[in-house]
Amino acid sequence: MRTSKYIYPDNELYLYVVSQFINKGVTKEKIGAIVYELEHEYLPDLTLEDYTAEVVKVLHKREVLNNIATGLYLDKMADKGLIDAPLQSIIENDAGVYGVDETLATAVANIYGSIGLTNYGFIDKAKIGVVGDLDNKHGVVNTFIDDAVGAIVAAVAGKLAHATAKSDLDTKEAVFD
Amino acid sequence: MRTSKYIYPDNELYLYVVSQFINKGVTKEKIGAIVYELEHEYLPDLTLEDYTAEVVKVLHKREVLNNIATGLYLDKMADKGLIDAPLQSIIENDAGVYGVDETLATAVANIYGSIGLTNYGFIDKAKIGVVGDLDNKHGVVNTFIDDAVGAIVAAVAGKLAHATAKSDLDTKEAVFD
Amino acid sequence: MRTSKYIYPDNELYLYVVSQFINKGVTKEKIGAIVYELEHEYLPDLTLEDYTAEVVKVLHKREVLNNIATGLYLDKMADKGLIDAPLQSIIENDAGVYGVDETLATAVANIYGSIGLTNYGFIDKAKIGVVGDLDNKHGVVNTFIDDAVGAIVAAVAGKLAHATAKSDLDTKEAVFD
Amino acid sequence: MRTSKYIYPDNELYLYVVSQFINKGVTKEKIGAIVYELEHEYLPDLTLEDYTAEVVKVLHKREVLNNIATGLYLDKMADKGLIDAPLQSIIENDAGVYGVDETLATAVANIYGSIGLTNYGFIDKAKIGVVGDLDNKHGVVNTFIDDAVGAIVAAVAGKLAHATAKSDLDTKEAVFD
Repeated sequence: MRTSKYIYPDNELYLYVVSQFINKGVTKEKIGAIVYELEHEYLPDLTLEDYTAEVVKVLHKREVLNNIATGLYLDKMADKGLIDAPLQSIIENDAGVYGVDETLATAVANIYGSIGLTNYGFIDKAKIGVVGDLDNKHGVVNTFIDDAVGAIVAAVAGKLAHATAKSDLDTKEAVFD
Repeated sequence: MRTSKYIYPDNELYLYVVSQFINKGVTKEKIGAIVYELEHEYLPDLTLEDYTAEVVKVLHKREVLNNIATGLYLDKMADKGLIDAPLQSIIENDAGVYGVDETLATAVANIYGSIGLTNYGFIDKAKIGVVGDLDNKHGVVNTFIDDAVGAIVAAVAGKLAHATAKSDLDTKEAVFD
Repeated sequence: MRTSKYIYPDNELYLYVVSQFINKGVTKEKIGAIVYELEHEYLPDLTLEDYTAEVVKVLHKREVLNNIATGLYLDKMADKGLIDAPLQSIIENDAGVYGVDETLATAVANIYGSIGLTNYGFIDKAKIGVVGDLDNKHGVVNTFIDDAVGAIVAAVAGKLAHATAKSDLDTKEAVFD
Repeated sequence: MRTSKYIYPDNELYLYVVSQFINKGVTKEKIGAIVYELEHEYLPDLTLEDYTAEVVKVLHKREVLNNIATGLYLDKMADKGLIDAPLQSIIENDAGVYGVDETLATAVANIYGSIGLTNYGFIDKAKIGVVGDLDNKHGVVNTFIDDAVGAIVAAVAGKLAHATAKSDLDTKEAVFD
């Protein structure tokens, strides 16, 4: 049901996501560093600070927060062993054929169009930067968080690709309306 | 990580999904009845029993179970008020701009191709059968379960559309290889 | 390959899409009218002109244009009988199990998040307004165009739902950063 | 419209896809070789012939054929310079912000669930095997075909991951129904 009086807690949701990330050692700078690694050859004028600022902007998008917060909550509950069987064991083991982490990540990557998707896949397989660190940590459930990081990177890359593409709208003759 | 020794609990996951459905009054027959309503004009020879049997088959697919079980677990935790703020209030209120329920449902509907997707959307808006019942129930969180039902119906419809389409492979000359 | 020197023809692409729409009798006002029909109960203060203006804004998004232009080109070639066999007959017949039109439409609807998707599905089945007109026209191929219209409506509805949701960011205390 | 009398040309569509692949030097063995490279460490018992046989099986799926045939037709028309402006220049230049090739590929990869998606992204960026060959060829439009190959590999990998996962259904006690 569409409950129009509900006040959507965007700000609170953002703070939740950031605090969950911090708990696992994921900072905006570490996410920015992966974007830098992937995009620097295409956009050499942008600094690490610029990329980190873009990460923060993407984390302002409600749909990004929705998907990521849900995944981080599931990781947290799995960490505590509180998920119903058999989902607990599936998530705890990061079973390869449980694709819900990929599904949530894809929804995030798609927000800036399908061009972000291939970056997400690459990061996930190549285990770059903090994604690799998360993957190697034992005794803690990181099933959703690594895909969340990859998805944010992919979203930022997609956003930047669109923003920096030269366009015929840059010229005077544009009659785009 | 791809942990090849892990034994995937398909059977246990199926039993979990079915038991969560039963707890909310959702039976395979009620899901089959929605498929019947949508598909009977195209496939008049199939009975309600046939449609219900197809629902059970689709619920054997691992990716279907993964997405649905995750959503039903979130509904159950929200029912108990156990989800971290602010996700608890978002899911409890079935906030219209929280799209994770749609994301999980779409992943299910997509398994039989994009043709199932439009059925899912229609069911969701038209609130047919048990989907409408779930939507009207107060005092209980049904944020994910109604989309899950719609997605199963869409998946079955997609599967049947593909299975019953006449094909040039039905003829002797087919050299499909 | 990422060819950074290429000037993306956003403006020209927009003009192409609009001209193809006009050729088939689809105007921005007719698309706006469907949005009005779906959204008026939720957003009673917006006029038909407001909805139409939103349609134009959504048609400024590059990813929206990319998907729609590709589909409209395929419709046009199919109209002329110029598509390679057997794709020509598949598209010409708007075969139900050819899901590429739905795939392109879904990519458009997804740009404003998964909440737009269910609207697209509803429009596609309920054949509202100009979507119904397109569906009933004989002797002309409208396989992609009706889904394109439904997708634009869904995208606008998703955009408006996000834009008009009350948010805790509207209050002074917001520390969203 | 759902035209139930239409005979879907699955066989003819398969032959079209295979012939377009052959024209560009893409054989089932070359696609199988990429799957081998990605999957051999997980599934060491399978031979190159086994992987190639799986490629052929995946190419039997109607939704796979639909998406790939559409993309290969667009490549072919772009090769001849016959696509309407400005789509012709966009596709000819394989512009990075035109995401329709990724959209079609994603639809293919999704058919075996979201787990295939990350493989597709990896192949696309790492340019493995024949995907790299296609990317380096000049004077010919390979905008859709490289994504198509990546998507098929991803689909096969997803299919194999699901098929080879150990399951509690393998045991006697399974009551999956």
